[in-house]
Amino acid sequence: MLRIITQQTEAQQELQRISARTHDDAIVHKEATVNEIVQTVRRQGDKALLHYTAEFDGQALTVDRLRVSGAELDAAYQQVSKELLKAIELAAQNIEAFHRQRMPKSWVTFGEDDVVLGKRYNPVDRAGIYVPGGRACYPSTVLMNAIPAKVAGVPQIAMVTPPGADKNLNPAVLVAAQVAGIEEIYRVGGAQSIAALAYGTDTIAKVDVITGPGNIYVTLAKKLVYGTVGIDSLAGPSEVLIIADRNANPQHVAVDLLAQAEHDPMAAAILITTDMGLATAVQAAVEQQLVNHPRRTLTEKSIAHYGLIAVVDTLEQAAELSNRFAPEHLEIKTDDPWALIDRIRHAGAIFLGDSTPEAVGDYLAGPNHTLPTSGAARYASALGVETFMKHSSLIQYSPAALGKVGNAIQALTQAEGLFSHGESVRLRLNDAATDRLRQRDE
Amino acid sequence: MLRIITQQTEAQQELQRISARTHDDAIVHKEATVNEIVQTVRRQGDKALLHYTAEFDGQALTVDRLRVSGAELDAAYQQVSKELLKAIELAAQNIEAFHRQRMPKSWVTFGEDDVVLGKRYNPVDRAGIYVPGGRACYPSTVLMNAIPAKVAGVPQIAMVTPPGADKNLNPAVLVAAQVAGIEEIYRVGGAQSIAALAYGTDTIAKVDVITGPGNIYVTLAKKLVYGTVGIDSLAGPSEVLIIADRNANPQHVAVDLLAQAEHDPMAAAILITTDMGLATAVQAAVEQQLVNHPRRTLTEKSIAHYGLIAVVDTLEQAAELSNRFAPEHLEIKTDDPWALIDRIRHAGAIFLGDSTPEAVGDYLAGPNHTLPTSGAARYASALGVETFMKHSSLIQYSPAALGKVGNAIQALTQAEGLFSHGESVRLRLNDAATDRLRQRDE
Repeated sequence: MLRIITQQTEAQQELQRISARTHDDAIVHKEATVNEIVQTVRRQGDKALLHYTAEFDGQALTVDRLRVSGAELDAAYQQVSKELLKAIELAAQNIEAFHRQRMPKSWVTFGEDDVVLGKRYNPVDRAGIYVPGGRACYPSTVLMNAIPAKVAGVPQIAMVTPPGADKNLNPAVLVAAQVAGIEEIYRVGGAQSIAALAYGTDTIAKVDVITGPGNIYVTLAKKLVYGTVGIDSLAGPSEVLIIADRNANPQHVAVDLLAQAEHDPMAAAILITTDMGLATAVQAAVEQQLVNHPRRTLTEKSIAHYGLIAVVDTLEQAAELSNRFAPEHLEIKTDDPWALIDRIRHAGAIFLGDSTPEAVGDYLAGPNHTLPTSGAARYASALGVETFMKHSSLIQYSPAALGKVGNAIQALTQAEGLFSHGESVRLRLNDAATDRLRQRDE
Repeated sequence: MLRIITQQTEAQQELQRISARTHDDAIVHKEATVNEIVQTVRRQGDKALLHYTAEFDGQALTVDRLRVSGAELDAAYQQVSKELLKAIELAAQNIEAFHRQRMPKSWVTFGEDDVVLGKRYNPVDRAGIYVPGGRACYPSTVLMNAIPAKVAGVPQIAMVTPPGADKNLNPAVLVAAQVAGIEEIYRVGGAQSIAALAYGTDTIAKVDVITGPGNIYVTLAKKLVYGTVGIDSLAGPSEVLIIADRNANPQHVAVDLLAQAEHDPMAAAILITTDMGLATAVQAAVEQQLVNHPRRTLTEKSIAHYGLIAVVDTLEQAAELSNRFAPEHLEIKTDDPWALIDRIRHAGAIFLGDSTPEAVGDYLAGPNHTLPTSGAARYASALGVETFMKHSSLIQYSPAALGKVGNAIQALTQAEGLFSHGESVRLRLNDAATDRLRQRDE
């Protein structure tokens, strides 16, 4: 049963408990395991990959089968329905179009005394993408990670995903990869695949940045190798927070809460409403929709532990509770959803109005579905082309410009006690003065 | 003595060794210490801060002295020369002007069927800035971290820096903080201060993002709390790589190498040149300039262990070697430095021409001096306003737009086995169809 809370302080405490659900002390014990896996792959390379794939995925591979063959890629198209292929292509199109908007562009400015300043953007040389596998099948994850990398102009993209039964990969995942333009795919997953991407093995070349969601082992491995490579974020379990007023449709609110809860027993589904009538109607609709839910047990668990309805007095209070939670997904189901936007400071993605269930953004509206979780929206954003790009600052001074700031730099270098920093300016200014004298004498 | 290497493979190996100088196994032992410090501060708050400040900084503080008082801030102005104050103000002006350029702006697009997509940028609520202290004095670090946060619009910025002798903080640092608009300053440093910023104590409120360079303990603490808060990067020892041809001034090249080496025995100073004559002239100039260097021993150490001159055949080879190293600072001292820019893919900041010693950018040109080190320029950029901002994706679909993508979403949700995701669309389309029928019947 989805609990209803009417007391503000209690609601705040509950939201805090739910937000902290991933900071579990159980993680500590897994860190040692993940560290051992990562170090072993770093030392032993492919041999360790095969060992861990046998141990964790129950699949006995050989080195030459790590990479998915061209024949297997071709065959995947035969195993996917025409409808699914069309849907993947539509999603890919929309995702590409959205990510092409407002891309970082190199620029320079020209100032006084011929000072040139600017930024020059470049993609990374090589990216690695993690896609969950085994029994799961997430073609959408492939698109959401691969397309921004492609749009950023990354010349090499490698994808890793754990093998399912019979060592096979899911055909929809393989098709999505090809639609996104990726053909370098390895059937390896878990912390071992992250280590392979970060340090390289004989078969899998080292990458510069690793993105994509995974279980706690994958996430811990990404944190461990961060610094050796770039990473997108540390993904936790998914969450939705819905702000709704009395005119919201309780069946629609309920199904959107369940669409979050069905992901994972750790997923969080939260409704904040100004209307007790809606609260009880949603509570009842959730119960009713759960009856025939194919993942009923899992979904009920998540609703029981991390589900919540908070009833508040005003939409402003709802927005402030939402900001404290900083949800991955925020749905605004009010009469005028845009009126509330200015009050929302922290949210990964915002879905406005009744006709925008989160599923639209999960799959094909265009914006990325890889979003900050567990309150990370306080400081982080969706995955994007920026994840696969970086810039170099550009600085050019002229002798005249250097002359004007010489004293200031000297004052600062003296304060910081950095002798040669000061000398690097003084020598140049001296040489320029000598040149001027020489020219005058000639 | 700065070594000269003419053999390409050897140069590559040496650059790789230098790049990996921070991936020291000694770090592993420090991780346990840092973890204990962080967990203790998380549990005990201020009490632990006082304990560690006594232990590591040798200063016995009380809780009420953790925060720097207004009187102390005022007094700092009296202890700073007029020249230094003017220099700090000039630097602040230039840094602000540069960081105001091309700031992320919110946007929306309006598509077919009233689909609205966009991004909405917001600053973080509260930022924490680490500034090294003790014997060191880095007003430039204050400006380079605080100003981007201010420009981003962060309403609360807290600065931490370890106390020196007599519990005092450096007056130049306090003045720089005030010029940048920061008045919330705590005399606490090390891993303990990072933990305080990440988890909060009674005195220091929790922040959303932590930036600023520190020693290995600070860096390891930042990595540990990453995920609970955002961080800028994991800073390693500083490095410069200079590409120069035969017309470069050997004294200028030498002093720029020393300006890097004098930072730290782990700092790296590398010259890649197409001219053996320049190589030997720079080698001699470095020796000569070291004779009266106030930090001679430290600087000689860094030159001996992590200094290098590589002589190559072409500037293209130099650029490729540089890309493999992905230097924090790259100086191009060639006849036409801009001609080489297209070949540079990875560098934190690029300084073009003889009149642009790195010191110009370190202090006051405007671009940020907090840059990716140890090869991180392959995937990371300078600190900037983006470090203190994040965005929410915006998505609004209309009933008509949802109707058109309904089948595609159903195909994808079925492939991924997510029942309620599909239902969230199906229910809405059914309801819309029922509405249409009802309207027709009325």
